Amino acid sequence: MTSPIHRVGLVAKPGLTEAADLLGEIGAWLVSRGIEPCYETDTASLSSTPLPGGICEPEQIGRHEQLIIVLGGDGTLLGTAGRLATSGFDVPVVAVNFGSLGFLTEVRVTEVYEALSQVLAGTAHEERRMMLESHVCRADGTQLSHISLNDVVITKGALSRMIDLVASADGQLIARFKADGLIVASPTGSTAYNLSAGGPIVHPGVDALVLTPIAPHTLTNRPVVLPASTSLDIVVAGEIARSSREETYVTFDGQVGDILGPGETVSIHRAPYALRLLKPSSHGYFQVLRQKLRWAER
Amino acid sequence: MTSPIHRVGLVAKPGLTEAADLLGEIGAWLVSRGIEPCYETDTASLSSTPLPGGICEPEQIGRHEQLIIVLGGDGTLLGTAGRLATSGFDVPVVAVNFGSLGFLTEVRVTEVYEALSQVLAGTAHEERRMMLESHVCRADGTQLSHISLNDVVITKGALSRMIDLVASADGQLIARFKADGLIVASPTGSTAYNLSAGGPIVHPGVDALVLTPIAPHTLTNRPVVLPASTSLDIVVAGEIARSSREETYVTFDGQVGDILGPGETVSIHRAPYALRLLKPSSHGYFQVLRQKLRWAER
Amino acid sequence: MTSPIHRVGLVAKPGLTEAADLLGEIGAWLVSRGIEPCYETDTASLSSTPLPGGICEPEQIGRHEQLIIVLGGDGTLLGTAGRLATSGFDVPVVAVNFGSLGFLTEVRVTEVYEALSQVLAGTAHEERRMMLESHVCRADGTQLSHISLNDVVITKGALSRMIDLVASADGQLIARFKADGLIVASPTGSTAYNLSAGGPIVHPGVDALVLTPIAPHTLTNRPVVLPASTSLDIVVAGEIARSSREETYVTFDGQVGDILGPGETVSIHRAPYALRLLKPSSHGYFQVLRQKLRWAER
Amino acid sequence: MTSPIHRVGLVAKPGLTEAADLLGEIGAWLVSRGIEPCYETDTASLSSTPLPGGICEPEQIGRHEQLIIVLGGDGTLLGTAGRLATSGFDVPVVAVNFGSLGFLTEVRVTEVYEALSQVLAGTAHEERRMMLESHVCRADGTQLSHISLNDVVITKGALSRMIDLVASADGQLIARFKADGLIVASPTGSTAYNLSAGGPIVHPGVDALVLTPIAPHTLTNRPVVLPASTSLDIVVAGEIARSSREETYVTFDGQVGDILGPGETVSIHRAPYALRLLKPSSHGYFQVLRQKLRWAER
Repeated sequence: MTSPIHRVGLVAKPGLTEAADLLGEIGAWLVSRGIEPCYETDTASLSSTPLPGGICEPEQIGRHEQLIIVLGGDGTLLGTAGRLATSGFDVPVVAVNFGSLGFLTEVRVTEVYEALSQVLAGTAHEERRMMLESHVCRADGTQLSHISLNDVVITKGALSRMIDLVASADGQLIARFKADGLIVASPTGSTAYNLSAGGPIVHPGVDALVLTPIAPHTLTNRPVVLPASTSLDIVVAGEIARSSREETYVTFDGQVGDILGPGETVSIHRAPYALRLLKPSSHGYFQVLRQKLRWAER
Repeated sequence: MTSPIHRVGLVAKPGLTEAADLLGEIGAWLVSRGIEPCYETDTASLSSTPLPGGICEPEQIGRHEQLIIVLGGDGTLLGTAGRLATSGFDVPVVAVNFGSLGFLTEVRVTEVYEALSQVLAGTAHEERRMMLESHVCRADGTQLSHISLNDVVITKGALSRMIDLVASADGQLIARFKADGLIVASPTGSTAYNLSAGGPIVHPGVDALVLTPIAPHTLTNRPVVLPASTSLDIVVAGEIARSSREETYVTFDGQVGDILGPGETVSIHRAPYALRLLKPSSHGYFQVLRQKLRWAER
Repeated sequence: MTSPIHRVGLVAKPGLTEAADLLGEIGAWLVSRGIEPCYETDTASLSSTPLPGGICEPEQIGRHEQLIIVLGGDGTLLGTAGRLATSGFDVPVVAVNFGSLGFLTEVRVTEVYEALSQVLAGTAHEERRMMLESHVCRADGTQLSHISLNDVVITKGALSRMIDLVASADGQLIARFKADGLIVASPTGSTAYNLSAGGPIVHPGVDALVLTPIAPHTLTNRPVVLPASTSLDIVVAGEIARSSREETYVTFDGQVGDILGPGETVSIHRAPYALRLLKPSSHGYFQVLRQKLRWAER
Repeated sequence: MTSPIHRVGLVAKPGLTEAADLLGEIGAWLVSRGIEPCYETDTASLSSTPLPGGICEPEQIGRHEQLIIVLGGDGTLLGTAGRLATSGFDVPVVAVNFGSLGFLTEVRVTEVYEALSQVLAGTAHEERRMMLESHVCRADGTQLSHISLNDVVITKGALSRMIDLVASADGQLIARFKADGLIVASPTGSTAYNLSAGGPIVHPGVDALVLTPIAPHTLTNRPVVLPASTSLDIVVAGEIARSSREETYVTFDGQVGDILGPGETVSIHRAPYALRLLKPSSHGYFQVLRQKLRWAER
């Protein structure tokens, strides 16, 4: 499933100086196996000593590489996944965790070489994580596109009392939601913000989207799991905001945001590219879940 | 998708005398179109006047028919769906609602002929509703099989404080649940007991199972949506019950139940047959949801 | 408990022209009983014909009156209750509902004279609804005070991912909350925003505050009911916001709001004045609850 | 608040052999301070060596003692609290925890002497924990009384689909609940079963009862916090059970249970006696909550 690996891209969390030594070590490990490392510009600058390999722009990472190694937390992976999908680079990723256990970045620093060996040997397990493509349709006719791995969140400003959103699936009205906001999550994103808002955990093997209202006024407005093939439209139904603190916003993976005015629509569907996540064969989905959610304890 | 219709089976809710007249009328309507009606034994006995057609045993309904008409509520449909799937009769069903709106029996009495006309014309919409097949593996080596449309529920006796269940998916441990019980629901069953226990609504187009703990001791034990292809095993981990009021039970669609002892297992997977539900093309899933859950009101 | 009534204040929802006729009628009804009506300035302007009685400023309503009649919805009552408590006017209120049934404004238009007769006869039931007094302690040493009937809500800006708040009760740490926000509700406010966020219904006869996190990251962070005598401090623990969309806000009854910076504190305790709500003796708390929450239906 | 201490009762969890040595040691420590220890019969039998003091029946513990020391878990304390209240013995209790941290048994084994010294010096903190008194009114006119510290739970048998209960407060209908069951919890019991069923945490300083439905069919049936002075009646509204697995039960602190038939009523109100719980002054309510619910972690 994975092409032969000649060149590997490395991306670290901005400012992650703890990773500086490992960046050089991994580079040397790759070179000794005849593989060329290539560091993303900011990542390269983390190391005070010269690194064994090339340097490339964030947007170019993935163009000539057959594997990307991400070092950091779930946030770093979200950013890299979004950039790869936006550029249409269909490259697998190994995500190494620095700091507390992540839902996505499961490989521990101590497991890096074991994981990379499995990847090179073709025995690592590849999970395809569905991504979401969104189009924000503005009142003036312009359109903005975004790709996200976890979720698309439409949310009220701090001083609004609620927002009023009309959601439909393939042109059929689902419901009008009066709530603090609305989350559309992928299975991967189901364990992020969706979980805080009362949504279910959705196994990444389920081909689905989750629609979860945040603090809904209608108490029976429960989370709804929809087929991944659904084309979801969410229209802002309220009035024009009187101040920036009353505006409605849409955010993608919690990282980028746009203001939404009355009548403007966010259309969401499955992205044509998935995140290809490589993990050591020993790692299991439920194992991470049990650890992160402390299921063994009260 | 539907074979030409020569013979139609009719099944009414036991004791539903309000349906007596309609049974005869529908029979006459079918006969006038060259179709032979066939009444399930108990259904036939609801009418005090002779009915136009044959009579057959509940277990035989579906063997020689190309369509089944169910009159009653969701319970009647659950029973019929279970019997059809158990016998392996792959016949579509039209479900006519008597009483309050059902999630499944959406056709109103006033819409019967419009719905039947659409079915005969081949313009009715067919939904395939996934069913669950369960095997109860006893300590003595015996096995019992059940098919259910909504759910499989493992639950504690009234005087137990909780039950202790170990759930795994395809041989991988999910978690050990200490709770009042555990619900495994199909998308169809997601709007039944699962909803009361805090589980999500799952659209019937999603290929999934929902695993929802009832009143879990571990507050982070949230509902989990799993791929429909999952082979789920639930093992009773507690001790031998001291009285019938402390025993663990498994029920299928809330209708049949078995006692479960320590170490005994319920294995659940997607049934080889689905319920083929025919509905007028005008009916939408979300419309029923909005009405049943009163989403238009606070 | 209620002083003899010589003068009655009338306050209507701004712009509520449907109430114009009733304002005059109630005035005449009062005059015919030797009681002087007094209209709040904006309320008086709703009527195109002269009204029988005096006019006074919103802030003065309650100074010389022994009863206030509010016409509108829960919002109008919230505003009036806040003004009365801020001025320290200890006057009972009859709240007449225009529009959909309110939790607070229970008297229907058709019941106005029956309700007023009971008030004059001293047979109406008086409920004392606890109010909340808050002090916002700024980094620069200044303090702002607010009185609210329903709730105090601390909430994140639309583009923040969460806020980080440290709550303590009488100087003892309760918890550090990472969430979308935190609601401190009175029993009266427990059926407002608190209910949407998953908080419990608290009967107005319970002497308590409710502390409910909105979409908490820690799934076990459940609503906590505290003694009404608790002195609650909530400190903003995060960093300085980078834009107005990332600021933390505190709102009182959803109507007035202040920005909160890191280290700033909101201190909340029971206000020295309660709202004195008069209602016809036939009205029951649970009756309104059953109607508003549609407890008779699924 | 506490009488001078001449005699101290000791009660350990049945079979708690780990406590055998400590029982003797505490006895010697008391004797050396001129205080007479008195062991509950079963507790005395845990020790293989003679104990320094008298022995008395479980029902007599508290009659002549001015302090009770309980060693075990929350269950042991529940039993002792019930017996003291039933007998009307108004004696304070120190609860020493064996095993995992309890909500009630907060004193660790290593803190025993420090805690006892504070008790003798009169510097320990006394918390009065409200208890519940219930009367089960049978169809045949007989009445049974129970006292519980945590909760009264009315629950369906394993094979019932739900129960149908009518709850009223001081003669006013609250609601008709169709659910798996209904929990009436004291503030102390709010962190027990009530929490699993979605009820709020109620600080022991709040004078209240919590009424929490278990898996309610009506999704808007949310937990209700009622004044502690409420006289609560719960009537079983369903039909006669067809088997022991369909019967309705009421349990008190999860330990004793009675069958309830149609029309039979459980009346619940605040018990005339409270549990007097003594704790070292350093222990805080929220500290235990944070530890038990792991509020410091996700």
